[in-house]
Amino acid sequence: MFVADHKDTIVALSTAPGVGAIAVIRMSGDKAIDIMTAVFKGKNLAEAKANTLHFGRIESETTIIDEVVVGIFRAPRSYTGEDIIEVSCHGSPYIQQQILTLLIAKGARMAKPGEFTMRAFLNGKMDLTQAEAVADLIAAQSQASHDVAIKQMRSGYGDALKNLRYELIHFASLIELELDFSEEDVEFAERSHLMHLLEQINVELDRLIKSFSLGNVIRNGVETVIAGRPNAGKSTLLNALLNEDRAIVSEIAGTTRDTIEAELNIKGVRFRLIDTAGIREAKDEIEKIGVAKTMEKIKTATLLIYVFDVHTMTPEEVGADLDSLVSSGDNMLVIANKIDAAGGQERAALFTKVNPDGFISSLQKVNIERLKDAMFARIVHEDITLEDAVVTNARHLEALRKARATMTEVQDAIAQKTSGELTALSIRYALNAIGEITGEVTNDDLLDNIFRKFCIGK
Amino acid sequence: MFVADHKDTIVALSTAPGVGAIAVIRMSGDKAIDIMTAVFKGKNLAEAKANTLHFGRIESETTIIDEVVVGIFRAPRSYTGEDIIEVSCHGSPYIQQQILTLLIAKGARMAKPGEFTMRAFLNGKMDLTQAEAVADLIAAQSQASHDVAIKQMRSGYGDALKNLRYELIHFASLIELELDFSEEDVEFAERSHLMHLLEQINVELDRLIKSFSLGNVIRNGVETVIAGRPNAGKSTLLNALLNEDRAIVSEIAGTTRDTIEAELNIKGVRFRLIDTAGIREAKDEIEKIGVAKTMEKIKTATLLIYVFDVHTMTPEEVGADLDSLVSSGDNMLVIANKIDAAGGQERAALFTKVNPDGFISSLQKVNIERLKDAMFARIVHEDITLEDAVVTNARHLEALRKARATMTEVQDAIAQKTSGELTALSIRYALNAIGEITGEVTNDDLLDNIFRKFCIGK
Repeated sequence: MFVADHKDTIVALSTAPGVGAIAVIRMSGDKAIDIMTAVFKGKNLAEAKANTLHFGRIESETTIIDEVVVGIFRAPRSYTGEDIIEVSCHGSPYIQQQILTLLIAKGARMAKPGEFTMRAFLNGKMDLTQAEAVADLIAAQSQASHDVAIKQMRSGYGDALKNLRYELIHFASLIELELDFSEEDVEFAERSHLMHLLEQINVELDRLIKSFSLGNVIRNGVETVIAGRPNAGKSTLLNALLNEDRAIVSEIAGTTRDTIEAELNIKGVRFRLIDTAGIREAKDEIEKIGVAKTMEKIKTATLLIYVFDVHTMTPEEVGADLDSLVSSGDNMLVIANKIDAAGGQERAALFTKVNPDGFISSLQKVNIERLKDAMFARIVHEDITLEDAVVTNARHLEALRKARATMTEVQDAIAQKTSGELTALSIRYALNAIGEITGEVTNDDLLDNIFRKFCIGK
Repeated sequence: MFVADHKDTIVALSTAPGVGAIAVIRMSGDKAIDIMTAVFKGKNLAEAKANTLHFGRIESETTIIDEVVVGIFRAPRSYTGEDIIEVSCHGSPYIQQQILTLLIAKGARMAKPGEFTMRAFLNGKMDLTQAEAVADLIAAQSQASHDVAIKQMRSGYGDALKNLRYELIHFASLIELELDFSEEDVEFAERSHLMHLLEQINVELDRLIKSFSLGNVIRNGVETVIAGRPNAGKSTLLNALLNEDRAIVSEIAGTTRDTIEAELNIKGVRFRLIDTAGIREAKDEIEKIGVAKTMEKIKTATLLIYVFDVHTMTPEEVGADLDSLVSSGDNMLVIANKIDAAGGQERAALFTKVNPDGFISSLQKVNIERLKDAMFARIVHEDITLEDAVVTNARHLEALRKARATMTEVQDAIAQKTSGELTALSIRYALNAIGEITGEVTNDDLLDNIFRKFCIGK
């Protein structure tokens, strides 16, 4: 039902809600220019050239609503691929409402969330990954998330996949053709070529699936928990990390008495720093709750920074802490603090489990920049960079994983010389799964799900 | 200093702050097109025609910031009278900030509040009353305030005044000319004509001054206090008034425990309804505070609605209440409630101080619409209507009153045949006072004061 309405002329406020100097109301569809012409006193818009601006008044039957500037775009050279009118009016909510009401009375209807962009997709102006990137771009709050979104909006990561999919379609046809000649036992589709193509597709799918670990942190930030015993210097470390970059830090009152959440931007990736209550033997019920909360945070952290005081801890104690904290050290940095104090270097040498870049002094700001580089490196793996296409979208990840699973089925079918019917069928499944990523295979529910998350007016 | 910067190229976000589908950044000044050309990948904007739209990318030295549509207006046919660039970008705060930063790096500076509109005034695109109406239009929340603002923005109320002022300038010149011939005792300026002109100006000034009482309530709404003894039916009356018009009512939690503030729109004028604690003899300290608060609200009300129960009150008690409430009944409506109950009509006949439209039943919704008409009529006097130019601005009122006072001085000077020097001087004062309304006489402080109240980007 959502997609079926796509012949209507739609209208919405496209700028942020509230009071501004100006606001922009956007209308798209076959009747957009006619509707606007009917309420606009100024140049006859029906005769206006594409991509031009016109000053005039919007009038209802009874009153002058506003003096406006109207921009006109003509199909197919517009955002949606349809005729588009953009009304730049004075930015009062009252005027916005009056103009919307008038345009709706004249035959437009309110656009649903993301409906302009959905039309751009339906009219072939962009593929689905590009359309989805538009929402990401608008939501982007850091340079890295912005850069990934704009790259995806401009070219999608569908091109490589799309081309491989076209080749697979070709093979599918050949295998289906073989079915027509099944009694003759011919083989139009060269199996070794097919296996090679499947391998190529797998490489691309694997790369994209792997990139999600980066894409996810770029999009959502990195939950970074700082843990350690009382007086290990957790808060000082937090301050030292933030101090270099105060301008982009916003401190948010934590949800628990003793948790501070702040945001640190390292090379465009947002690290959300969470200070925790010190790890220690709980002496009473209240402390038990505090320790349990800390352990909960540690368990869900994307990155865990364990910090200890080189002067008061023994390597055994550190080892015991680490054992209690996590099973794997994949997402952990072990940091030896207070190495600047007398004898600190000698003490530090005793600890073998500390990360190479983990010998610091929070108080004297020793090696803090190196620690930041290490934090970034722990999240952004060298074999996937921001220059590559990066999957940031959970829907894409799911579709990619589904596609990857069907590919294995195809490979198995061919290796085991399964019947042509079954092979053809599994290839069709794989084509569908890949097509769902780029939107070459789609349905109303899928589109509805994607675009309902957009803001209205986009 | 504010006005002196008007050769700079200025830039600001012109749409409401926050996340939207799109945002518009506006740049005005000699260098606007050059600055935009330098960062825009697409058509060469320097060669673009006026009033055209261009799709392209904004790029910094290191990165693509966004895909945008750029609108171009060329001096003098633009809002400010200067070259204007409007960038329609994706509506993320991050992108808005990046584009603003880039344009500032390339030579623009952040616009001050109202600076675009101030330039429109300085470049003769509108007079000062029109410029001020722009801010009113953006702030307008009701049809009446919108209509008054748009009328003032389109034509000002300065035209009549302006023409009268020009005639007065002519007379001032003649009288000053007489001074050169003072020994010959000639009279170039026909005194009876001058007196007639002064009278015409006074009529116009008086009309505008009087219109402020309407203009003020249109702009700021009408503080309407409902008062009466406990159980007079104040809350029921409030609900009955609101019930007819629920859609545009917003209830705000009051500042005191027992005050409800709600908004009622009658023919486009906003009445802010304030329910009060019942008037009664205070029995303790807490009640005393409540009564004192009620009396305070009654004192500052623009409109006071006193309501009583026809069945439980005597005319004497009503009279005593009215005496205690206000000295004058100018802004008061006296309402007899519960006339629908048995014997109500007979009881009602006993009360002579009730307004003709004041016999109602809140519960049965009897005569509520008539009461609304009476409320409107009490505020909007028949001899000033929304069709006339209406003064809504306290600055204008002050300037009008000043002008009116100087006019009396001129009339006195002529009537008393004061020396030509003094007459000429008082006419000059009057010319200045009138000129300050329309902005023909102005100074930096005045402009600074006016435009600093605008939003940035307008």
